Amino acid sequence: MVEISNHMPTAELQALDAAHHMHPFSTQSGFSKKGARVITRAKGTRLWDSEGAEILDAMAGLWCVNIGYGRDELAEAAYRQMKELPYYNTFFQTTHVPVIALSQRLAELAPGDLNHVFYAGSGSEANDTNIRMARFYWAQKGKPEKNIIISRKNAYHGSTLGAMSLGGMSGMHTQGGVVQNVHHIDQPNWWSEGGDMSPEDFGIERAQQLEKAILELGEDRVAAFIAEPIQGAGGVIVPPDSYWPELKRICDQYDILLIADEVICGFGRTGNWFGSETVGIQPHIMTIAKGLSSGYAPIGGSIVCDEVAEVVGGDEFNHGYTYAGHPVSCAVALENLRILDEEGIVTRAREEIAPYLKEKFEGLTEHPMVGEAKIVGMMGSIALTPHKESRAAFASETGTVGYMVRERCFANNLIMRHVGDRMIISPPLVISKEDVDLLIARAWQSLDEGMAQVKADGLFKPA
Amino acid sequence: MVEISNHMPTAELQALDAAHHMHPFSTQSGFSKKGARVITRAKGTRLWDSEGAEILDAMAGLWCVNIGYGRDELAEAAYRQMKELPYYNTFFQTTHVPVIALSQRLAELAPGDLNHVFYAGSGSEANDTNIRMARFYWAQKGKPEKNIIISRKNAYHGSTLGAMSLGGMSGMHTQGGVVQNVHHIDQPNWWSEGGDMSPEDFGIERAQQLEKAILELGEDRVAAFIAEPIQGAGGVIVPPDSYWPELKRICDQYDILLIADEVICGFGRTGNWFGSETVGIQPHIMTIAKGLSSGYAPIGGSIVCDEVAEVVGGDEFNHGYTYAGHPVSCAVALENLRILDEEGIVTRAREEIAPYLKEKFEGLTEHPMVGEAKIVGMMGSIALTPHKESRAAFASETGTVGYMVRERCFANNLIMRHVGDRMIISPPLVISKEDVDLLIARAWQSLDEGMAQVKADGLFKPA
Repeated sequence: MVEISNHMPTAELQALDAAHHMHPFSTQSGFSKKGARVITRAKGTRLWDSEGAEILDAMAGLWCVNIGYGRDELAEAAYRQMKELPYYNTFFQTTHVPVIALSQRLAELAPGDLNHVFYAGSGSEANDTNIRMARFYWAQKGKPEKNIIISRKNAYHGSTLGAMSLGGMSGMHTQGGVVQNVHHIDQPNWWSEGGDMSPEDFGIERAQQLEKAILELGEDRVAAFIAEPIQGAGGVIVPPDSYWPELKRICDQYDILLIADEVICGFGRTGNWFGSETVGIQPHIMTIAKGLSSGYAPIGGSIVCDEVAEVVGGDEFNHGYTYAGHPVSCAVALENLRILDEEGIVTRAREEIAPYLKEKFEGLTEHPMVGEAKIVGMMGSIALTPHKESRAAFASETGTVGYMVRERCFANNLIMRHVGDRMIISPPLVISKEDVDLLIARAWQSLDEGMAQVKADGLFKPA
Repeated sequence: MVEISNHMPTAELQALDAAHHMHPFSTQSGFSKKGARVITRAKGTRLWDSEGAEILDAMAGLWCVNIGYGRDELAEAAYRQMKELPYYNTFFQTTHVPVIALSQRLAELAPGDLNHVFYAGSGSEANDTNIRMARFYWAQKGKPEKNIIISRKNAYHGSTLGAMSLGGMSGMHTQGGVVQNVHHIDQPNWWSEGGDMSPEDFGIERAQQLEKAILELGEDRVAAFIAEPIQGAGGVIVPPDSYWPELKRICDQYDILLIADEVICGFGRTGNWFGSETVGIQPHIMTIAKGLSSGYAPIGGSIVCDEVAEVVGGDEFNHGYTYAGHPVSCAVALENLRILDEEGIVTRAREEIAPYLKEKFEGLTEHPMVGEAKIVGMMGSIALTPHKESRAAFASETGTVGYMVRERCFANNLIMRHVGDRMIISPPLVISKEDVDLLIARAWQSLDEGMAQVKADGLFKPA
């Protein structure tokens, strides 16, 4: 057995990584040419790699480390729980204390009558559950044909077959098939798709696509509408202000379930405990994961309203996961929620940091390659463009320029992500104002360097 | 915020549990009538509940706590890793040390050229991945129509839409829909379905259903065959000896992938590191979870052979999970594998405990309500019957008698599970011979009590 430690040379680690570790959303063959960056430790908003570089993580891992890295209290909670009861299941009429405590706490935090938690191991699994739960709900009510879920193009709801079918990423749909009876309407991405409409008119038009879809498919066929309050992995698409009020009107008018995917938006990301509060909706089911444990332990779930829980709970729901309500993950999540609450991290993000970040982040629109900057709470994106007035895309394949800028960010020790030609941020909620300044400075520098390369490659021109 | 601790009265814990925690595979409304048993701590093979009862866990949690409860080394590994790097993702050309180390170790342990690990958070997610990976593999080879997965009735492969579609549990298929292009052949359950055939002839017949299916569907349409080496959640169905050699011949003859679901069978459960070794096959992909971390931390994955990894890795595979290769879960799994190996737990299970358990377990066939007892390594089942010679089922609805016996087991502080009218065990691999004796004694007593009730209810008669 080879001993592998943090003290092995980077090249050896990279070679083993390329040989044995298949990376998600990657072209694996690339790793034998260019090794992966090896992250070895982290603290607060900072990562360190195996070469000693100190990196500002403006993505909070993968939208999840809301509390920041290096909170020993969470490690201690995991340790205590793992010594006491490292695992037990919640099937067969058994339960345990951490899952009870977390369920009670989530019922307290979640808005309205969202009082019941069905656990999963991840957001993907939870959204997979939501498909089955929504359909089972209507079947229990005598309407098995009411089984279509409406979602949105460019939505992201996870990576299982069910979850990615809910999602609207066409590149995922073409690999491995999709589940039936999921219908997609257009996204509220005014920058790229708004044409000559005003943002407000466009928001209304996109919201009303839901109404049109319900009427076309038939109200008796539509089980639910699912949406992220703010689209995350689609590129932090902040909808026009008119969008959610109109969606709310439609959801209230027709007899369908509203599922809010809070995997990214939840637990302070938008400045409130849940994105649903930020956009003013009261969903029937909320999907949770990521910020629930700040990523320190895998856990996800669905928070379900009284009426859905009652109907679904009236018969055996033949569904569940081995690690549902894992005691260690629950203990870690509970400690994370305690700290987020007692240290006022969500409140501080909303009242102090988010306004500061917004001002600085929107300042990036002064950069010649940045069109719009949109931010809600602690998640934001900028649109890269060769021509601001016309909101033009680049003549190169979508994502080419975004990738160039991301690579400059990485080289400048800033983790920003690109989605197509949008650059996105989602920093730990605990980021300081000084680190916001550093984030913006490194972003600006990376934009400069990226633009120089784009120009050198002859790509700085509209499509 | 209500403080919830292990010292709260059981009734209060149960009330909160019923109010806020939706249990998997349960009728939720039942919990307000009869509260769940609250497990509070565990050590070795023992659980304790909130009433102080000491319970022998003959299911290792949910087939997962192979190493036994209370191994502080795993808690310490989690603690160390969570302090150093509690989370990082493996997207976007990054990696970290625990995922590299675990990948290398799994490549070492897995048979043949199964050298590449694609991580998931659970067995469900990993099997969901396998559907997409098998289809993507054939699409990459220019055969997108080669996308049907053949599985077996009464197989269990998880609970996402994809995974449960692979599985052959009809009660799950009817709730929420299934994914397309999954085909099910019959299971090798001789006791219930063998009729007048000899077990050996029956094993051949059931294996040859795979060949018939391939020929009927067309070899150019079939992507893969998936099977648990020994069916687990279907009731520990141990196939006749003729079954796997014939399946192997068929898989070798036709150009399809063989996926071995090792979620239950892996990591010592059948007396070898993998069930594939026990049944003599070399799969292209193995699904892993559960015993990988002994359930101490959620983790799953697919171990992939060189050729599949090369083809899939030649282009971007648009798939992956936030918690894939979670550093804390990887660190816990590594420590679990170290202990299983260095303490010789797998070897001891195979050479000492499994033979002892087999002798005692098969002795249960002397009980008047037990037909067959089948056991491979550390997983076994007994068939309950009112008439051994004819292998008759009970006149009552399937599972009625099994449930009665399970309830007696629970009352006698033994965790055994029923699947229909089979009773199953899957104890921690570290169980002592004394605990095997206790397991058998409590099982016998529970069978006696169960049979008395069955007779009193007038159910002790053939269907």
